Amino acid sequence: MAHFIKGELTALGAEIELRELGKQEGTNVDLPPIVLGRYGNDPKKRNILVYGHYDVQPALVEDGWDTEPFQLVEKDGKLVGRGSTDDKGPVMGWINSIQAHQKAGIEFPVNLVMCFEGMEEYGSDGLDDLIRAEKDKFFKGVDATCICDNYWLGTSHPVLTYGIRGCSYYSVTVSGPSADLHSGIFGGMVSEPLIDLTHILSKLVSPQGKILIPGIMDMVVPLTPEEEKLYDDIKYSMDDLYAATGSKTNLFDTEKESLMARWRYPTLSLHGVEGAFSAPGAKTVIPAKVSGKFSIRTVPNITPRELDECVSKYVNTVWKELGSKNKMEIKLMHDGMWWLSSPDHWNFEAAKKATKAVWKVDPDFTREGGSIPVTLTFEEELKKNVLLLPMGRGDDGAHSINEKLDLINYINGVKTLSAYLHYAAVQPMAGA
Amino acid sequence: MAHFIKGELTALGAEIELRELGKQEGTNVDLPPIVLGRYGNDPKKRNILVYGHYDVQPALVEDGWDTEPFQLVEKDGKLVGRGSTDDKGPVMGWINSIQAHQKAGIEFPVNLVMCFEGMEEYGSDGLDDLIRAEKDKFFKGVDATCICDNYWLGTSHPVLTYGIRGCSYYSVTVSGPSADLHSGIFGGMVSEPLIDLTHILSKLVSPQGKILIPGIMDMVVPLTPEEEKLYDDIKYSMDDLYAATGSKTNLFDTEKESLMARWRYPTLSLHGVEGAFSAPGAKTVIPAKVSGKFSIRTVPNITPRELDECVSKYVNTVWKELGSKNKMEIKLMHDGMWWLSSPDHWNFEAAKKATKAVWKVDPDFTREGGSIPVTLTFEEELKKNVLLLPMGRGDDGAHSINEKLDLINYINGVKTLSAYLHYAAVQPMAGA
Repeated sequence: MAHFIKGELTALGAEIELRELGKQEGTNVDLPPIVLGRYGNDPKKRNILVYGHYDVQPALVEDGWDTEPFQLVEKDGKLVGRGSTDDKGPVMGWINSIQAHQKAGIEFPVNLVMCFEGMEEYGSDGLDDLIRAEKDKFFKGVDATCICDNYWLGTSHPVLTYGIRGCSYYSVTVSGPSADLHSGIFGGMVSEPLIDLTHILSKLVSPQGKILIPGIMDMVVPLTPEEEKLYDDIKYSMDDLYAATGSKTNLFDTEKESLMARWRYPTLSLHGVEGAFSAPGAKTVIPAKVSGKFSIRTVPNITPRELDECVSKYVNTVWKELGSKNKMEIKLMHDGMWWLSSPDHWNFEAAKKATKAVWKVDPDFTREGGSIPVTLTFEEELKKNVLLLPMGRGDDGAHSINEKLDLINYINGVKTLSAYLHYAAVQPMAGA
Repeated sequence: MAHFIKGELTALGAEIELRELGKQEGTNVDLPPIVLGRYGNDPKKRNILVYGHYDVQPALVEDGWDTEPFQLVEKDGKLVGRGSTDDKGPVMGWINSIQAHQKAGIEFPVNLVMCFEGMEEYGSDGLDDLIRAEKDKFFKGVDATCICDNYWLGTSHPVLTYGIRGCSYYSVTVSGPSADLHSGIFGGMVSEPLIDLTHILSKLVSPQGKILIPGIMDMVVPLTPEEEKLYDDIKYSMDDLYAATGSKTNLFDTEKESLMARWRYPTLSLHGVEGAFSAPGAKTVIPAKVSGKFSIRTVPNITPRELDECVSKYVNTVWKELGSKNKMEIKLMHDGMWWLSSPDHWNFEAAKKATKAVWKVDPDFTREGGSIPVTLTFEEELKKNVLLLPMGRGDDGAHSINEKLDLINYINGVKTLSAYLHYAAVQPMAGA
């Protein structure tokens, strides 16, 4: 993918470097390179940094896809395939924007600084270090950053995003026997790792979504009446949620509570179990070593370190209470901080005008439940405003089967990205 | 495998039929045929029925095998490969016994009636029906049955087995959204099936192995002093358990308690979760539909039907208490009854003499924690004694990685099977 992007952009006249990052920690596997690019070097123009990622979530036809996930197909006005909306589509959007300007014979309005990585779905390994190392070199002179890697809240109204949750991803591993055992022969004689693990996982969060780990909710910034008011005008209905999830499995009955649960409160999700029997059918095995995976989405003012202390302390306490002879290890696999910006900045103003010009409506200003930790790194290291300008819709199915990007969102998306650059080139520099 | 066995036995002069069983229930998949065979038709000889199975548990190198699981290798005096001990090895043992008699020019002492199936690891689909249908036809005249499909209790002392536990295998499925969701976007807004499932599973059994489902322990036959005394002489030590599991994760501190937990008490094991994230790495998914797999090993006088009522009622009660908007289904995937015989029968006496002749020691009389439901069906339908005469050792790793059968157990095992047939041919017909 990195080489493909390099090829496309080089053909358009951009200067591209593939920055190697060494091995993934604890492995002998090369990290995928970061694509660093620059299109235009005019000192009279503003420098706009755009970020995207070319890696995607895993996908198998057996997961339930209607089509081959790694073959992009156009179907009912939708581009269907893994990465269509998260985030290969938007990366292609920036490339198409350059192409469109060249074909239309219109001067590109800014110097485009590009950073496309390949480890976003696994915690952006190596990217933070690169940004820190390059802040006064490759990234020098950047005036504002635009990230196109999230989604509209619903399915019909464009949004600009000024806040995201952080994410701390954990594995809790329980191991006992040296190899899997036959449950007929050993069932009842030995302590089973999967039984222990199930007990631990069930004590992390209630079926109603309440986090059972003490200390986490205490770190959450209290809701003020002013903040609560912001939620009144958001164009979102419970029907959007029902449509996006294909179910009525909502934990809250109102739009406001649902959006707050997504944007301003932490949540804990269970993802799965590694090492246990996971295939169809009936296998009578006692798995020897099992890892439960869970993650916590974080919000102001939870810090990953304090969170980690709460999680570690609690899981160890639960473990001691189980009184098992097995071994347990709780491990932070990766973390990323939440981010909260101000939508008054000229960078947001440019995106607002672009949205209005293309979609004929004012965008909603939203926060995001998902995590793009690099947002915060760009803001903190480059000391410049970061804007999230999403291309896809809330029902695109990122990380799910049959991921899609509506064709109109792609076409109008490329137009919006392009218009944003034109407004960003001339917008008076104001705002926090 | 069925065709391979047919080929081997036909070449030795046996009459072989591959009995087709139709489709697997609820699928369009052909069931593997049952191999029905007969070697010898002498009305003056006894008819001994032998049973084995040619199907095996799933196995992948990635599970942690040191060698390719479906390539038999000889290593340090062991035959290593999936099925070496469970149960392809023993099936080959019967074939080799015929072969050995032919090569040595010794008359085969009995008419050997053979039944080798291919669905044992999934509940012996179709076999019970076949036995019922053929009891007065193919199986007519059988004098006794010998099953070679279990293991010594430890690693050094041969055993004969007169009891086995039953097994009822369940799936409990929780489903909510129509497809997997991104935990960043939907985490906190929706009820997560895997959270619900984890709560259900954690309420089935304690980390100390206590079954939490009411009613099951009430069905267990109380322990009498006479029965307890039987456990005093069994050659088994906690070190055997430590060696077999490669750990000290024993639930009980004494041999007697451990063996009772394995032989005469029910146990509940958790096997895994289907539909959740099960690969290495960190995927931020909310799985849409997950199935937890668990099984209960049953003992006298638990009946599968009464057990099923207890399980179903309890899981439904737990489910209601969770108050989830998701859907839950508890399903019995397969069941098999326990079996308890008397070791005083001439069939056991023949096997005891054979063991003594080959291994130079008297066998221990044991029960088995695993389940071979067909044992009971043979006994009930044919009204003749069934004997379990194991070939492998307690640390063979059936259902686990690096499954093996010691070479000496194979060689002496074939000798024991052969000697058993010779004693069975002449043993006075006495015993319950």
